[in-house]
Amino acid sequence: MKSERDIIAHVVSLLRLPPDGEVVRGIGDDCAVINKDSRNCFLVSTDTLVEGVHFDLAWHPPALVGRKAAAVNLSDIAAMGGKPRFALLNLAFPASAPTWLDDFLAGFIAMLGEYAVMLVGGDTVKSSSDCSITVTIIGEAARDAVIYRSGAVSGDLVFVSGVLGNAAAGLALCRAALGRNALQKWKGLVGAHQAPEPRIGLGNILAASNLVHAMMDISDGLATDLAHLCEESSTGAEVARESLPVSEDLEAAAAELQMPVLDWVLRGGEDYQLLFTAAPEHEAALRALVREKNEGEIFAVGRITAGRGVFLQEGSKRSEITYQGYDHFRD
Amino acid sequence: MKSERDIIAHVVSLLRLPPDGEVVRGIGDDCAVINKDSRNCFLVSTDTLVEGVHFDLAWHPPALVGRKAAAVNLSDIAAMGGKPRFALLNLAFPASAPTWLDDFLAGFIAMLGEYAVMLVGGDTVKSSSDCSITVTIIGEAARDAVIYRSGAVSGDLVFVSGVLGNAAAGLALCRAALGRNALQKWKGLVGAHQAPEPRIGLGNILAASNLVHAMMDISDGLATDLAHLCEESSTGAEVARESLPVSEDLEAAAAELQMPVLDWVLRGGEDYQLLFTAAPEHEAALRALVREKNEGEIFAVGRITAGRGVFLQEGSKRSEITYQGYDHFRD
Repeated sequence: MKSERDIIAHVVSLLRLPPDGEVVRGIGDDCAVINKDSRNCFLVSTDTLVEGVHFDLAWHPPALVGRKAAAVNLSDIAAMGGKPRFALLNLAFPASAPTWLDDFLAGFIAMLGEYAVMLVGGDTVKSSSDCSITVTIIGEAARDAVIYRSGAVSGDLVFVSGVLGNAAAGLALCRAALGRNALQKWKGLVGAHQAPEPRIGLGNILAASNLVHAMMDISDGLATDLAHLCEESSTGAEVARESLPVSEDLEAAAAELQMPVLDWVLRGGEDYQLLFTAAPEHEAALRALVREKNEGEIFAVGRITAGRGVFLQEGSKRSEITYQGYDHFRD
Repeated sequence: MKSERDIIAHVVSLLRLPPDGEVVRGIGDDCAVINKDSRNCFLVSTDTLVEGVHFDLAWHPPALVGRKAAAVNLSDIAAMGGKPRFALLNLAFPASAPTWLDDFLAGFIAMLGEYAVMLVGGDTVKSSSDCSITVTIIGEAARDAVIYRSGAVSGDLVFVSGVLGNAAAGLALCRAALGRNALQKWKGLVGAHQAPEPRIGLGNILAASNLVHAMMDISDGLATDLAHLCEESSTGAEVARESLPVSEDLEAAAAELQMPVLDWVLRGGEDYQLLFTAAPEHEAALRALVREKNEGEIFAVGRITAGRGVFLQEGSKRSEITYQGYDHFRD
């Protein structure tokens, strides 16, 4: 079966791109980058969510689905260091508006409001059987401050902006059908799945620092997203097992569900933390900056290498993990 | 059951719009209009198509579905007088890429290429059971040349840019399951359904003329789309039955299928012709301009009125047709 990457590569191979000086970046990054005026550019990104595939109302309150539909798109703007500005919302559902639509919209619009994003358009259509939601987001950035996936340099440190795997663990717990009381115990993990926060503030700070070489958000898991970043940068990477930030909750949940911790941490996806690289000599300055701006902690998890492939170093064991994260059509 | 208009009105009612001087026009026109630089603006629009609802591969070759997915979005740019520039494509399908995906993409990309539109992004996800396609299009226009739905003035003539109802008739013929040979006889009508052409050239000419007060494209049928234009302009309209441009093919198909001609002409939708208004004293100049530029013929079908509602005058009979066109959730 074709993977999601195969399909995208195929679409790109079909394109006969007309030369267009206004497009700074097309397919291949978190957002397309289009010139706006002499100093600024627009960032454009879009995501589709399907009920039963990307969200399950059995354990996902509709208002939080709405927040998440906004958040995953806002995260793409954060990933390039931009400010989100405008959104479009396409809704498709069978027969009539579902009962959860009002709560979904309230959550969606509340999240947009928190980032002063204006809903400027969309479409409402009847589907055959799925409820699906497509959000398109338009952000803005100074052209020379945009951070791409493609800027990583051999020797860079690889950073992530928070613990990894909590969202995947939360999803696994929900799927295990533990019931409301049992899930209450895991509310931190379940919340990471239900209501991710886009790291807009941190993305802006990193873009303004001029110290970051490459950046993206972690939506498909570190193994796949770091592979994307390396492919665009023509590099490889090594990740150190002992450097991966993992929450105590996740360790406990992994023990309870008898799941390997690394599956969630490397392959789970939906963390919506930022993944970025910078020269080792700037590590201290970056840490100080992030702390000063109250954007939590950043974690150095590995290094960019000249050789290709993404590898995990676990004690003396080295294993390849390139593109081993979430794939829409494989998983 | 809520109509599509009800749902959109509900979304709009939920919006607490942050003041944003960069948004010239939000929800309520064919495109959102966002400032680009001191002279120009971006036009943004999006549409979702679902297999089995918006297209049926039993009679719709995948390459033409691809062309149409592009065309209906390009038409929204035409409707405001803009030039299309960039597109995003979201694909959702169950399990794996459908066998028709390659042909679909070839048609989609060919149509974009004809208008020098660059595909800059998108998303590919697994759905639960529907194949759905969302296209987002970004166009550009000089800010003072954009034509809105809201500019119609009482006394204006109402024009359409081509015969009406052919696409609806073509769809009805396909649905009647006539077989390939029988459909060959109706290929003009079937082609209007399968492969509409966006009126980009005409839209640009009308925008540059400075003679057009209000414009939109006809996607849901004249009865509904003229009602939209009138609502945004705080006017009404009267349409004269004998002025409606109807093809001989459509008359013949209506006789064969025993369908009322007006159902297709007023209510059918998907014509993707332009609907626009201008002062009567400019009719001759507009006709000459359109002829000179080889953009076919324009037809004056009625008049904008001060009183509200859209009415059809048929001999001495006057009947209200406000919003009697296609509605995604009623039909």
